[in-house]
Amino acid sequence: MTRRRQIYEGKAKILYEGPEPGTIIQYFKDDATAFNAQKKGTINGKGVINNRISEYVFTRLSHIGIPTHFIRRLNMREQLVRQVEIVPIEVIVRNVAAGSICKRLGLEEGVALPHTLIEYCYKDDALGDPLVGEEHIACFNWASQEEMQDISSMAIRVNDFLCGMFAAINIRLIDFKLEFGRLYDGDFSRIILADEISPDGCRLWDMTTNEKLDKDRFRRDLGGEEEAYQEVARRLGLLGNEDNSPGEVFDLSAHRGKLRGTKPKK
Amino acid sequence: MTRRRQIYEGKAKILYEGPEPGTIIQYFKDDATAFNAQKKGTINGKGVINNRISEYVFTRLSHIGIPTHFIRRLNMREQLVRQVEIVPIEVIVRNVAAGSICKRLGLEEGVALPHTLIEYCYKDDALGDPLVGEEHIACFNWASQEEMQDISSMAIRVNDFLCGMFAAINIRLIDFKLEFGRLYDGDFSRIILADEISPDGCRLWDMTTNEKLDKDRFRRDLGGEEEAYQEVARRLGLLGNEDNSPGEVFDLSAHRGKLRGTKPKK
Repeated sequence: MTRRRQIYEGKAKILYEGPEPGTIIQYFKDDATAFNAQKKGTINGKGVINNRISEYVFTRLSHIGIPTHFIRRLNMREQLVRQVEIVPIEVIVRNVAAGSICKRLGLEEGVALPHTLIEYCYKDDALGDPLVGEEHIACFNWASQEEMQDISSMAIRVNDFLCGMFAAINIRLIDFKLEFGRLYDGDFSRIILADEISPDGCRLWDMTTNEKLDKDRFRRDLGGEEEAYQEVARRLGLLGNEDNSPGEVFDLSAHRGKLRGTKPKK
Repeated sequence: MTRRRQIYEGKAKILYEGPEPGTIIQYFKDDATAFNAQKKGTINGKGVINNRISEYVFTRLSHIGIPTHFIRRLNMREQLVRQVEIVPIEVIVRNVAAGSICKRLGLEEGVALPHTLIEYCYKDDALGDPLVGEEHIACFNWASQEEMQDISSMAIRVNDFLCGMFAAINIRLIDFKLEFGRLYDGDFSRIILADEISPDGCRLWDMTTNEKLDKDRFRRDLGGEEEAYQEVARRLGLLGNEDNSPGEVFDLSAHRGKLRGTKPKK
């Protein structure tokens, strides 16, 4: 396993060359970062849970016709995905004002936006992933107009699906981040959903208590991040004996000792 | 004159109630601000020149069919304009990378953009006029999709016209800011060009020397801002005896004593 060629190490994942051409292995780390990596730490067991939640979500999205890079989960922390050329745009879908947009536009956290808002950030760590508009994407040709059409319509469909999925387990989907990639077939390419969908890149609030069940617990030093991630997985039936997952179910109880406390690196 | 009702005082202009309903008097001040009014000062004679340049540009834009709020110049510092409801969006048209976009997107100042880029900022001083995309404008209904269509197509036409106009006097139009307003006719409204077009809101570089002939001289403490504004007016034939202006020509020589040195307020 350790002799595989590492392609890329990101903040929360490592990518290795996959077993066949055109495949990649996504390894989910427990590392957590926030505010463009100014804050760093670890959320024990996060990688295991995100691997599982992302598998669950991507599998179900493919059932409604959203093409994704997901092939299959390999083990607790790894999944096999299709190799794509990542579009250098973070797509942020917002239903309710929270996080950066509140300060930026003077909005109160927790207030529903007039409409679902899609924001775009240019993926560049050195620049702090600056907000851009479709105007910039067209000007610098980061994606074609056709690709942006596919991306925005897929983003809306994913939002509808996720709103329904989370509503069913009493969670309000505040906002989330998506990344897309180009899957090449000779000279042609098409846009598919890539990266991951997990509590790392979503804001998820309990519908009854407004309790945050996502990475904001880490960002804002609220504590209980392990428990929050576990709670999302539990409600989705991905922990313990509730078998409504598309793949195998695993039991985290053996790891429960590890699932307490945060060890900030910084 | 002093008994007129003041409607609004901005950073560079004061608006008074006009002589007839639906009209406004725009008074051009010499006050200069930069970086969201963190830097304040005076550019002597600026108001006189901007009043004149803006008259010149708006008059000629109306000749190519761009509807504007401009009615006529009243005196050295004032012009009569139509009352409009300002669309709360600053429209920035960029041909060459300069200013805020360089740091934001990691671009080198002076490099031509792949295409002309239109950026939008939400007009809100308290928020620092944050950059937004068409996505935000639609979400918060700051302007309708039809209005944005009119605004962006007018912005492109204005850019083409200004590029030609400045090229003829050996000036490169780097970028500029526009504001638009809704002119009401009963329940209906249409979008017309409002505010001003002057070296306050444009970046103008001499084509031969790259010398800056605009407010960046003030922003960056380069000195010679009075002379730069005068130079633009002079090349447009708006100073001295060169009579190619649509209205009257005036001589600034009587004010030349005032047109030296900057008196920073802060």
